[in-house]
Amino acid sequence: MSPARGFPRSEYRDRTARAQAMMAEAGLDALLLTTEPEVRYFTGFLTRFWESPTRPWFVIVPAQGDPVAVIPSIGAALMGQTWVQDIRCWRAPDYTDDGIGLLAAALCEFSGLNGAIGVPSGLETHVRMPLDSWNRLPALLGGRRLTGDAGITRNLRMVKSAAEIERIADSCGVADRAFARVGEIAAPGVPLSTVFRRFQMLCLDEGADAVPYLAGAAAQGGYSDVISPASDRALAPGDVLMLDTGLMRDGYFCDFDRNFAVAHVAQDVAKAHARLIDATQAAFDIARPGALASDLFHAMDRIVTGGAGGSDAGRLGHGLGMQLTEPPSLIPQDMTVLQPGMVLTLEPGIDLGQGRILVHEENVVIEAEGARWLSQPRGREMEIV
Amino acid sequence: MSPARGFPRSEYRDRTARAQAMMAEAGLDALLLTTEPEVRYFTGFLTRFWESPTRPWFVIVPAQGDPVAVIPSIGAALMGQTWVQDIRCWRAPDYTDDGIGLLAAALCEFSGLNGAIGVPSGLETHVRMPLDSWNRLPALLGGRRLTGDAGITRNLRMVKSAAEIERIADSCGVADRAFARVGEIAAPGVPLSTVFRRFQMLCLDEGADAVPYLAGAAAQGGYSDVISPASDRALAPGDVLMLDTGLMRDGYFCDFDRNFAVAHVAQDVAKAHARLIDATQAAFDIARPGALASDLFHAMDRIVTGGAGGSDAGRLGHGLGMQLTEPPSLIPQDMTVLQPGMVLTLEPGIDLGQGRILVHEENVVIEAEGARWLSQPRGREMEIV
Repeated sequence: MSPARGFPRSEYRDRTARAQAMMAEAGLDALLLTTEPEVRYFTGFLTRFWESPTRPWFVIVPAQGDPVAVIPSIGAALMGQTWVQDIRCWRAPDYTDDGIGLLAAALCEFSGLNGAIGVPSGLETHVRMPLDSWNRLPALLGGRRLTGDAGITRNLRMVKSAAEIERIADSCGVADRAFARVGEIAAPGVPLSTVFRRFQMLCLDEGADAVPYLAGAAAQGGYSDVISPASDRALAPGDVLMLDTGLMRDGYFCDFDRNFAVAHVAQDVAKAHARLIDATQAAFDIARPGALASDLFHAMDRIVTGGAGGSDAGRLGHGLGMQLTEPPSLIPQDMTVLQPGMVLTLEPGIDLGQGRILVHEENVVIEAEGARWLSQPRGREMEIV
Repeated sequence: MSPARGFPRSEYRDRTARAQAMMAEAGLDALLLTTEPEVRYFTGFLTRFWESPTRPWFVIVPAQGDPVAVIPSIGAALMGQTWVQDIRCWRAPDYTDDGIGLLAAALCEFSGLNGAIGVPSGLETHVRMPLDSWNRLPALLGGRRLTGDAGITRNLRMVKSAAEIERIADSCGVADRAFARVGEIAAPGVPLSTVFRRFQMLCLDEGADAVPYLAGAAAQGGYSDVISPASDRALAPGDVLMLDTGLMRDGYFCDFDRNFAVAHVAQDVAKAHARLIDATQAAFDIARPGALASDLFHAMDRIVTGGAGGSDAGRLGHGLGMQLTEPPSLIPQDMTVLQPGMVLTLEPGIDLGQGRILVHEENVVIEAEGARWLSQPRGREMEIV
């Protein structure tokens, strides 16, 4: 049974209050947010309309009080259904001033004369507005300074509330049920592109609102790459079929994969798969409050490479939530201290030689006593289709 | 029958040569591209992995020679399958330097000491890299200047090649077939969220690779908004059901909607629907090389508002191709001269009063003699489910 859609107002009040406490500490008068997850995190504004790059959308989190939306009028009705009261609109696209004048006026209203306005600026962020608009902003702000957000949005979003975790678990459940039905759609002779298409249909049939991400591969004894689109090549006995999905329900993602042996499984592949499961379990076993993101990397890397320090994929897992991938990264350099409420993917990969790899992925949440599986963890034996 | 996947190398050579001619005219030594469509346009790099915001991706178009990719190593295998030869990789994420040093070195190599590097900076663009990285770049470039791209990427991409048009037409065909089957999934009593889910399944079943966009609504005698996600409310007799999809096949979108009357249709709704079809036809009739984007706006606006000049949606259509929405915009201020190869949506809306609207949308391509429908145009009478 899926949780009811949307969050109570208290969820957004809590997020805003936590942000404001961190802003006070960092000396920020306001936050300026421009991307889909940043805007949604503080407002609840959920729409697939972000697929259109035409219009910029802005949210300001002031030092006190509720967030302020500065948005195109086409979004006024939907934003009006959220908890946000102060909604300022322009008719976009406007070739003279596409919201920048309105945004600057609002920023001036909510920050002191020499105030500092924080904009997410670190890894995994970008500023979603035209460069020309961005370059016009400083002159319109007088003595106010645009600066980084001191990691506030990253640190806030990295720790999920109970309601958020419930939604991620729900999405994981949808994917679990879809993966359990792969036997219905995959068999020798079926083109990989058809498997991809039908797997997305299974995800929708099992309750996904959308399937923003599906990658994978199928090739003899392992695959060379995990981000390619599907080819029209037909599955053949001896192939390893991998499906990696990021489906979404009520705005929250899962992100995990499954490997299937087509007709039969080679011994080196079977062994590698078992080793991936062991690596995942090793990370799971030490994943608890106080452990570092890098500890999880090393726990897996010891098993998959003997401790070589990583691969071209660059990491062995990452955060997960409103986006398919979020901070932290499971790499040797990431010293993020795990806390209850963090949701992570554990994603070890093994190099099988001759350009072949095998990658496995599960989703977990960190709780007070340790980790809890959100995806239903796979056994060591590979499933055969 | 869908076209074979991918483009011949000549497609990318042509794009690059056209860009380089425009760069010479604008005095640009190089283009720096950072977003999915920009990177794909010049390289053919097609992956859903952009769903992950973690890693930046860069492509440089030099004044002479082929494009250069500066990308995370996780993308090396896939980029290696494109026509791009010069591929420079780093292992991302890198917390010390996430590709900016490598990018700056490449930019210095491909631009003169006081050279100008063009970055798309106008409406509908953004720079997809962390602000901290962007801010580090000037110091690494010596006397070289980061500047706008003089509208080059916009103007190039606005005019589609025959191969691109074939793909957009193919996606439109998929959506046409899915819309023809809405009677299978929509009926009084079915929740709108279920209709959304099943409509995406129909799109996939008919050949979509993915369904990145679906919006719509269902409400009595019209709807209040066209960008909301689906609620769980059941369809009721007298509802108008609208489904607006941007599905994708081989990297190209369609974007059009259909309105359905649930069980029966009120007279004002039926009349409004007929008027929308008339407005679409009026724009179609004058859509030919030499007409302005604004002419199409006025042709539709005369019929839907009597010439009031627009609505909160802000426009009555737009470009379409690698993205759900692209330039130009059908608004009074857009003086873009239509050219053969431009693909447009015609998207008039009517205000029915009491917060209800009705929106219709078709897709067309501009050819030498006039417009050609890419979606199968709807008749004046609304379909009943």
